[in-house]
Amino acid sequence: MSQAVAEATNGQMAGSAAGPETRAWPHRHLLDTDVLSWPQVELVLDTADDMAEIVAGRRPRSEALRGVGVTNLFYEASTRTRVSFEAAAKHLSADIVNVTAGGSSVEKGESLLDTMRTLEALGARILVIRHATSGAPYLVAREFGGAVINAGDGRHAHPTQALLDLYTLRRRLPGGSLVDRKIVILGDVLHSRVARSNLWTLTAAGAEVWLCGPATLLRGFEAWAAGGVAGNRRCTVTTDVAAALRDADAVMVLRIQQERMAAGLLPSTHEYAARYGLTAERLALAAPGCLVLHPGPMNEGVEIAPDVAAGPRSLVVEQVANGVPIRMAILSLVWSTVA
Amino acid sequence: MSQAVAEATNGQMAGSAAGPETRAWPHRHLLDTDVLSWPQVELVLDTADDMAEIVAGRRPRSEALRGVGVTNLFYEASTRTRVSFEAAAKHLSADIVNVTAGGSSVEKGESLLDTMRTLEALGARILVIRHATSGAPYLVAREFGGAVINAGDGRHAHPTQALLDLYTLRRRLPGGSLVDRKIVILGDVLHSRVARSNLWTLTAAGAEVWLCGPATLLRGFEAWAAGGVAGNRRCTVTTDVAAALRDADAVMVLRIQQERMAAGLLPSTHEYAARYGLTAERLALAAPGCLVLHPGPMNEGVEIAPDVAAGPRSLVVEQVANGVPIRMAILSLVWSTVA
Amino acid sequence: MSQAVAEATNGQMAGSAAGPETRAWPHRHLLDTDVLSWPQVELVLDTADDMAEIVAGRRPRSEALRGVGVTNLFYEASTRTRVSFEAAAKHLSADIVNVTAGGSSVEKGESLLDTMRTLEALGARILVIRHATSGAPYLVAREFGGAVINAGDGRHAHPTQALLDLYTLRRRLPGGSLVDRKIVILGDVLHSRVARSNLWTLTAAGAEVWLCGPATLLRGFEAWAAGGVAGNRRCTVTTDVAAALRDADAVMVLRIQQERMAAGLLPSTHEYAARYGLTAERLALAAPGCLVLHPGPMNEGVEIAPDVAAGPRSLVVEQVANGVPIRMAILSLVWSTVA
Repeated sequence: MSQAVAEATNGQMAGSAAGPETRAWPHRHLLDTDVLSWPQVELVLDTADDMAEIVAGRRPRSEALRGVGVTNLFYEASTRTRVSFEAAAKHLSADIVNVTAGGSSVEKGESLLDTMRTLEALGARILVIRHATSGAPYLVAREFGGAVINAGDGRHAHPTQALLDLYTLRRRLPGGSLVDRKIVILGDVLHSRVARSNLWTLTAAGAEVWLCGPATLLRGFEAWAAGGVAGNRRCTVTTDVAAALRDADAVMVLRIQQERMAAGLLPSTHEYAARYGLTAERLALAAPGCLVLHPGPMNEGVEIAPDVAAGPRSLVVEQVANGVPIRMAILSLVWSTVA
Repeated sequence: MSQAVAEATNGQMAGSAAGPETRAWPHRHLLDTDVLSWPQVELVLDTADDMAEIVAGRRPRSEALRGVGVTNLFYEASTRTRVSFEAAAKHLSADIVNVTAGGSSVEKGESLLDTMRTLEALGARILVIRHATSGAPYLVAREFGGAVINAGDGRHAHPTQALLDLYTLRRRLPGGSLVDRKIVILGDVLHSRVARSNLWTLTAAGAEVWLCGPATLLRGFEAWAAGGVAGNRRCTVTTDVAAALRDADAVMVLRIQQERMAAGLLPSTHEYAARYGLTAERLALAAPGCLVLHPGPMNEGVEIAPDVAAGPRSLVVEQVANGVPIRMAILSLVWSTVA
Repeated sequence: MSQAVAEATNGQMAGSAAGPETRAWPHRHLLDTDVLSWPQVELVLDTADDMAEIVAGRRPRSEALRGVGVTNLFYEASTRTRVSFEAAAKHLSADIVNVTAGGSSVEKGESLLDTMRTLEALGARILVIRHATSGAPYLVAREFGGAVINAGDGRHAHPTQALLDLYTLRRRLPGGSLVDRKIVILGDVLHSRVARSNLWTLTAAGAEVWLCGPATLLRGFEAWAAGGVAGNRRCTVTTDVAAALRDADAVMVLRIQQERMAAGLLPSTHEYAARYGLTAERLALAAPGCLVLHPGPMNEGVEIAPDVAAGPRSLVVEQVANGVPIRMAILSLVWSTVA
């Protein structure tokens, strides 16, 4: 581990010893990764290892959340995250209810807090919320009697995605450690809650993070990275895709959203693909065996070439699969603070 | 109890003695509250008391509806009612299926009766139906082999809402009785199925009901109230909000729907709020400790001020919570006539 | 059985003896009926007979698919098929997840194969797919690790519908056999996946099939029928509704879709009803007791008169009910090749 990381102000970076007492889980809500100490991150990953045994059918379904009301409140479209939480809740024997913006009181203009209070009165003890507005889960958490899990809020945070990405990287990187690994986050960093939540966990794990994309989609991050990124965590910002990819150990490709084009922040999907799309040619600049991640859903041919997406280094499907034990771990950890 | 109420023609008003034999439940369907005798209403409330023990986790999940197919058929958007029936069915171990107008054969123009027959053939034994057309559940009930529960039809009826409102009032009013209590229903009475179903149960419980709102939204009720409201049940109709609220024991605020503005029945939400919105100032006219109810979803700042909605007298969240045991009671009572 | 049928090239028509070994189920996927040998079709029907005992409550819920992830992936609106698979999966104790095009990654333009891989990573072992594009389930089946069931693809195939239609006919036709029975498929044959899948099973069962409708909606079938229909299976194509119905033992009425009018393939619903709608008058041409089927949802008054739809010969509701044991049979048979 580099000296810089070892000197991290919170003293909880990768490799720091953690007695069992420091591994107790104190967070009733999971709203972002920035509040997680390193031992807490490791507790999530270790718990997910146990949960993966249940998912694989090598251990019986858990009764940990028997009779506990888990409500998925999704104000934005989602397949993988919604179904992932649903599967995770079922493996823990919870009672799951799905509420989406379509076909609900949300259409009638009910306020978010009133919807939350309604769902709580109907039996929700854990609320999994996705919302287009950054900060919405924080507002809800302030008043909800149970536990709130942020399943993505605007461009702010997506903590379970970051945790499953870290879990996937640790299982796949030789040696199982991110310390001193070069990891590139490529694409629309500015609007990405996935990038933001990953920044915390990846740097806490000791990785050297590179943020790369068109200048319009990196705005503000340069100054932030230059400032030392909270206690000597290491982060470099660049528009130079070759420099970013050179000798990289992993590339996390972000989804390009069509709306950004409309807003004039990007010229065209064609031009984006030509300049920043992850092609086999570009990937050849990276270290041998460089891993490829994408939070999905992918625009193949835009931010990622189809052959790279389906190639041997792609962990895209593995990320999805790892999401289930990670979310089981989070569900059971937050519930331990409520029950 | 007043003489007027005691003389009610059906002899089944609040306080009348009911032996166990008169408490048997004869209704295969629950389409409105107008057919419920007072002992039957009390049977629902007492059954809900038992069910609340299950919801609270003090008694184990019931097996009463094990293997029984309960289908939620919702032609209108709903969070609270749909999820409430879903939760109620799960507490009774029923098999619940949700069908909404979006993403279903309903979009293809299938007739309501054909949809019903299809759902019955697919295993529905209890059909919970919400429909924009008044009377639709009656049409369905005529042909359905199992039990039909009306979860709101047009501007006609919403019986489980009225029952949960009554249950909530009985638990909160000092002495646990509505006899001679002044209860105001405030707002768009004309288009409200909640108001209509509540009129029956509240007057049957011995309350003095006041209907209050703009004249355009009370049309027809004056003549009806003047006619004695079915056997000396007491009902007053007024556009004078101060007169209505004076010394009231409870106010039931109705939702103002934007469509009414478009139809020219109301000037604007701003003007409605100014003239009829339930503010703290107006609530001060009522009796000390006056209770506030709203069926939700609320338009805060229109028909109800935010501080009143979230204030200490507001029972809005409690109403939602009480809906679950009330719906469990109804599910198990109607099922008792089918099984 | 006629000589023509007995000489069928594949030697697996109705009535051919089948030892237990030939009844083993070899198909991991069910994409259409054309690959089913006659003994395999009979195995489905016999298995459905067993399953019907569970549905009727005369035998306990099966544990055959306990813990198996069944995912309904529906890109087109559906009530009956989606709920039917959901009910079937529950009777077998499977874990069912519903994913529809609305409110999912599908809206974000994710490719079908990526969605499939995502759902597989989330635990889907059996994928039930409905898609507007003919052939889509074949594409998915090529890469999916579990079993794929086609729940309707474009105008191509709808195998479980054909199997439930056959099951319904066998239970209702005197003698329980389709050999030499005249069965009419009436309507928009050209665009009907129901017609196409039924052609295989009905002719394999030994029936004489008549396809009838306006010439624009039969295009291509005449040449095909004249060619002998794959091994002497018997099929006649005509625009003459009287000739088709004369002495028919069963009529399968197809749904007329409004889109066809817009495309100029049909003059108007009114004119279609006048010329090809199944009225009581037309039905009188058929054999006494002629059965009437419709895959639903029906446009009553267009392709079928209301009194015929609700009449004593109509098997429409029975078809829906039979869909559940048929789908249970298919789920358990395909699963037997995966588990």
